[in-house]
Amino acid sequence: MFEDKKIDRPTLEALLTNRFFFVPSFSIYGGVAGLYDYGPIGSALQQNLINLWRQHFVVEEDMLEMDGAIITPAEVLKTSGHVEKFTDFMCKDEVTLEVFRADHLVEAVLEARLESNKLARELSEKLNVSEEKANVSADGKKKKAAANKPTLLEDSVVAEYNEILAKIDNYDMKELGDIIVKYEVRNPATGNKVTPPVEFNLMFDSSIGPTGNLKGYLRPETAQSQFVNFSRLLEFNNQKMPFASAMVGKSFRNEISPRSGLLRVREFMMAEIEHYVDPLNKNHHKFSEVAHIKLNLLPANVQQSGSTKITVMTIGEAVSQKVIDNETLGYFLGRIFLFLEKIGIDNERLRFRQHMSNEMAHYACDCWDAEIHNSYGWIECIGCADRSAYDLTVHSKRTKEKLCVRENLETPIVYDALVCNLNKKLFGPKFRQNAKAIQDKLESLTQDELALVKEGLESNGKYNLEMSSGVHELTTELLSVDLQTFKENVREYTPNVIEPSFGLGRILYSLIEHSYYTRMESESRSVFRFNPLIAPFKVLVLPLLKNAAFRPILTQIARSLRSMGVPARVDDAASASIGRRYSRNDELGIPFAITVDYQSIESGLITLRERDTTTQIQADIKVILDLVVKLVNGSETWENIIKTHPVIETSAE
Amino acid sequence: MFEDKKIDRPTLEALLTNRFFFVPSFSIYGGVAGLYDYGPIGSALQQNLINLWRQHFVVEEDMLEMDGAIITPAEVLKTSGHVEKFTDFMCKDEVTLEVFRADHLVEAVLEARLESNKLARELSEKLNVSEEKANVSADGKKKKAAANKPTLLEDSVVAEYNEILAKIDNYDMKELGDIIVKYEVRNPATGNKVTPPVEFNLMFDSSIGPTGNLKGYLRPETAQSQFVNFSRLLEFNNQKMPFASAMVGKSFRNEISPRSGLLRVREFMMAEIEHYVDPLNKNHHKFSEVAHIKLNLLPANVQQSGSTKITVMTIGEAVSQKVIDNETLGYFLGRIFLFLEKIGIDNERLRFRQHMSNEMAHYACDCWDAEIHNSYGWIECIGCADRSAYDLTVHSKRTKEKLCVRENLETPIVYDALVCNLNKKLFGPKFRQNAKAIQDKLESLTQDELALVKEGLESNGKYNLEMSSGVHELTTELLSVDLQTFKENVREYTPNVIEPSFGLGRILYSLIEHSYYTRMESESRSVFRFNPLIAPFKVLVLPLLKNAAFRPILTQIARSLRSMGVPARVDDAASASIGRRYSRNDELGIPFAITVDYQSIESGLITLRERDTTTQIQADIKVILDLVVKLVNGSETWENIIKTHPVIETSAE
Repeated sequence: MFEDKKIDRPTLEALLTNRFFFVPSFSIYGGVAGLYDYGPIGSALQQNLINLWRQHFVVEEDMLEMDGAIITPAEVLKTSGHVEKFTDFMCKDEVTLEVFRADHLVEAVLEARLESNKLARELSEKLNVSEEKANVSADGKKKKAAANKPTLLEDSVVAEYNEILAKIDNYDMKELGDIIVKYEVRNPATGNKVTPPVEFNLMFDSSIGPTGNLKGYLRPETAQSQFVNFSRLLEFNNQKMPFASAMVGKSFRNEISPRSGLLRVREFMMAEIEHYVDPLNKNHHKFSEVAHIKLNLLPANVQQSGSTKITVMTIGEAVSQKVIDNETLGYFLGRIFLFLEKIGIDNERLRFRQHMSNEMAHYACDCWDAEIHNSYGWIECIGCADRSAYDLTVHSKRTKEKLCVRENLETPIVYDALVCNLNKKLFGPKFRQNAKAIQDKLESLTQDELALVKEGLESNGKYNLEMSSGVHELTTELLSVDLQTFKENVREYTPNVIEPSFGLGRILYSLIEHSYYTRMESESRSVFRFNPLIAPFKVLVLPLLKNAAFRPILTQIARSLRSMGVPARVDDAASASIGRRYSRNDELGIPFAITVDYQSIESGLITLRERDTTTQIQADIKVILDLVVKLVNGSETWENIIKTHPVIETSAE
Repeated sequence: MFEDKKIDRPTLEALLTNRFFFVPSFSIYGGVAGLYDYGPIGSALQQNLINLWRQHFVVEEDMLEMDGAIITPAEVLKTSGHVEKFTDFMCKDEVTLEVFRADHLVEAVLEARLESNKLARELSEKLNVSEEKANVSADGKKKKAAANKPTLLEDSVVAEYNEILAKIDNYDMKELGDIIVKYEVRNPATGNKVTPPVEFNLMFDSSIGPTGNLKGYLRPETAQSQFVNFSRLLEFNNQKMPFASAMVGKSFRNEISPRSGLLRVREFMMAEIEHYVDPLNKNHHKFSEVAHIKLNLLPANVQQSGSTKITVMTIGEAVSQKVIDNETLGYFLGRIFLFLEKIGIDNERLRFRQHMSNEMAHYACDCWDAEIHNSYGWIECIGCADRSAYDLTVHSKRTKEKLCVRENLETPIVYDALVCNLNKKLFGPKFRQNAKAIQDKLESLTQDELALVKEGLESNGKYNLEMSSGVHELTTELLSVDLQTFKENVREYTPNVIEPSFGLGRILYSLIEHSYYTRMESESRSVFRFNPLIAPFKVLVLPLLKNAAFRPILTQIARSLRSMGVPARVDDAASASIGRRYSRNDELGIPFAITVDYQSIESGLITLRERDTTTQIQADIKVILDLVVKLVNGSETWENIIKTHPVIETSAE
């Protein structure tokens, strides 16, 4: 079903730079890896993407949007686990001290060896020479081979390499270090050995205020700001569950060695939704609206069997067959699909890949990535995880602030439970400084553990409680464990969080690739087929040729469009032909062009050209402007228009 | 003309917190001074403000918007002057080490003394007791006065204090230190002495990448990203001048001791325009469109005479009388005025204050602040400065990249100029290691300086060139200075930059105050009169009372509105009366409310209520929804609607 669409990336990249879609930041200062500036086209694309996202999710789903601080005190990120665990492994060239991300280095070196092996085999087949097995050494590299001569690998080594590459995201520090030693991974540029991997935290740190005592980080995600405000959000929602908060903004990761253009950067725009849901009921009231949508799914079990075969399935089937864990998760996958379709992502190059159990955070109970295919391969652009109650629980524990929902029960819950009843008169004097700790320990015991204590006390008259402070003997004089009946009118619970998290830069870049094509007539005429909702400029306004007489009409048209909120670009350069000007604005993805010529002055007629078909119609200024507004806000289509407005003949562009 | 509108700030602040307009960030962790999280209302207000700004400036004025990196390498900010000069002065309590911003401490202490003096005088007048002059000491404080008893000051001391307060923004480090010593300024909380002021740089710093060798800062403004991309922007604009770039985004200042809520924060949303203009022609082609607008001006010369009297003047008059330096500056002041009017700022509480010469950066040639009055006083919300060619010049010098405009001249410029002609054969051997430096020095001489060299050589046969390396004797054998004729077909110049810079948080807070009022019937019924363009939710949808029968209609109305891009809030809480629900949503500034009752089920009639008049009309669902969309996009007004739709009687709210 999916056909790999080749793109000439160097040509595309040159175009994106020349037309200022985006460029490395501070390039006149030599640039900084992983930082990009979006020019007029890139920033308008980004803004339109955000506006559509807001309409599709925040407005239509009635989410509570926030804008939280970027600078985050260390304490918050210690609780969330980022200070300890948000790390990559790095190693250095032992001589030049050049820094590498360890997994990327292993990947690059092994892939190069496999590539070299492939070439060598092709070569040897051509020469009809048998494999020189004798020359292949234990480490898998052909000895004495000239530096740039393809190298043969044993079949077993090829298999080992492929297995390592398949698991490359999942190795810990020691495993990566062992691989580097075992397979003699070195800096490809110098041939030098590299140091064993060490952990590097990916957060940018800084100091808040003038004392230097308050450490802060630039947020690595927007989620934590939402979690710490949970109680206010719930209050704003009049205590009603379920609901979602949302945030759009920049986040930061101090990548070890950024690469792949916009796909791996140090500063990025993200949009995150935190949907809070009752852990006992993850159904969604609008599920029926997405149940019929067919998705390209790549479930975990398929991947575990070593395959990447797509299963096409409706969301309804996937949830009922438990391929997708619950309705809410399924609902969001459906909404994500509709969003990507609306902005212009090619459906055939979109798949939803489930995380395998070893990929997921320990607290997550299901996670699906929306992966979009582009010239870098299948790229994770949106993660959609069920994070369970993890985040709210840890912040609540750390701050002693309740982050939970209190639900009034129509029918009270009545249940029996074991409780400890202490004889406080004896308990305190007996255990002295340990008394408080022992009491806390007893209160933290589960019902099963309490049952053991009860049994011990009742059958032996005592129970030995093991704690770090030693073994404490509990006797029947000190306490009893009794079954009591409880009645609750309020149910208190910590919501689970389902989190769709969008990397807008990755989506943007994929959209650029999916929108890029060249005209049949000429490979050098590049076009972006951005739809009118996403296109940076909606209308190009241009005179047939440079002539002062056209100026008043051009100005009038451009100003009318702009005052109606339609971004318009005027191109009246004397030096360029009309065809050249159409063409250089096709490179900006402008969907419509209005051309002014002598007829416009004489009879008020102007022409309107559609970018992809290059067909044109002619009508009065007012008529054309009305049509343009409808085309731009999506209430009219070009196909429809040319049914009632005859296409006119024009000279070849 | 301007009447001071008192606001009960504690009540307002409680409301803003309770309804989650904005709150201190990470408040469950104790909060961080100067960081705020915007909740659903605050973030929607901010977003609507940005959207209107973009439409008013970027789209209507055809500006080139960018989105640049926040993390900025140190080198860029060294060049711009921020590393050296972007500082405040701080001092510490000698005992507790509490940190103060020095000018704020002086200000607070002297203001407290003046206040105390005022109270003491009132008291003494009341008691008809003559001033106890004998008890007033040289430092201006009444000795032996009980701690909380008002203190009398000499008239001369009052005058000194007032003079210091008037100049408080302009003292350097040494002057502030002298004032602290001379007037015995201490920490008011402890009575301890404070350390002499030291400089503190206001930028947050961090380290880019894993090596620790690349220092970076969080940008203190968005301007530098625009300047370093000047050549790309000019190219995107097809080399046409003048034009403007623009950027909206967060900037950061590590304030010593943030205060005043949203007015002085460490992380803030700003919007900046850099308008590039020919230094020889600062006229603006749309100036006539704003020339008639009357502004409240506070020119520099009025302030220098010690007055704050407003001059009301049209922009046309102000520019022709040179009160405002040039048309482009005047044009932007006019557009700023129109923008603030559109969002709902009270014109009478807006003034444009010109910077006095000692306030302006050395390179600026004119600067006006749009100041908005709120309960904190007159607050600078928008700066509009003519920064001359400073920024482009320094970046160009540092990077050796040309940041200039090349203009083809229709008539070439022909001119004569003096140039040095060296006899290189003799020059090098004569000056050896100094030769290059001397040659550079000669090339850097102005025409006047060259004329002196020429005169010396021609009348004395020699000229003594003074340099740091010593005095070098130049003779006629070594060089001659000659008049040559030059012809230029291209004029190359560095544009001047006019920079309107908007502090969106300050504008937002002022707008909140200007929009806040309480109902005549009850002081406790707070309302925000946000206009439909700026209001976070546009429509409240509610049932007359809680009844499952209303649910389908409520859902249908809310969904229709949301799908048309109209944010709608549903309030169907069982526990609250209709009046209570109107009232609590007036606190969110929702301009319109749609109420569903039994008639809606029977005959499809719903009512539409306008927030400020509380008048209501009744009509069919479809009619009401059409009206709402028009009201929200600004194509219809309530006054108009009630002319054709009779206002209905309702029970008291």
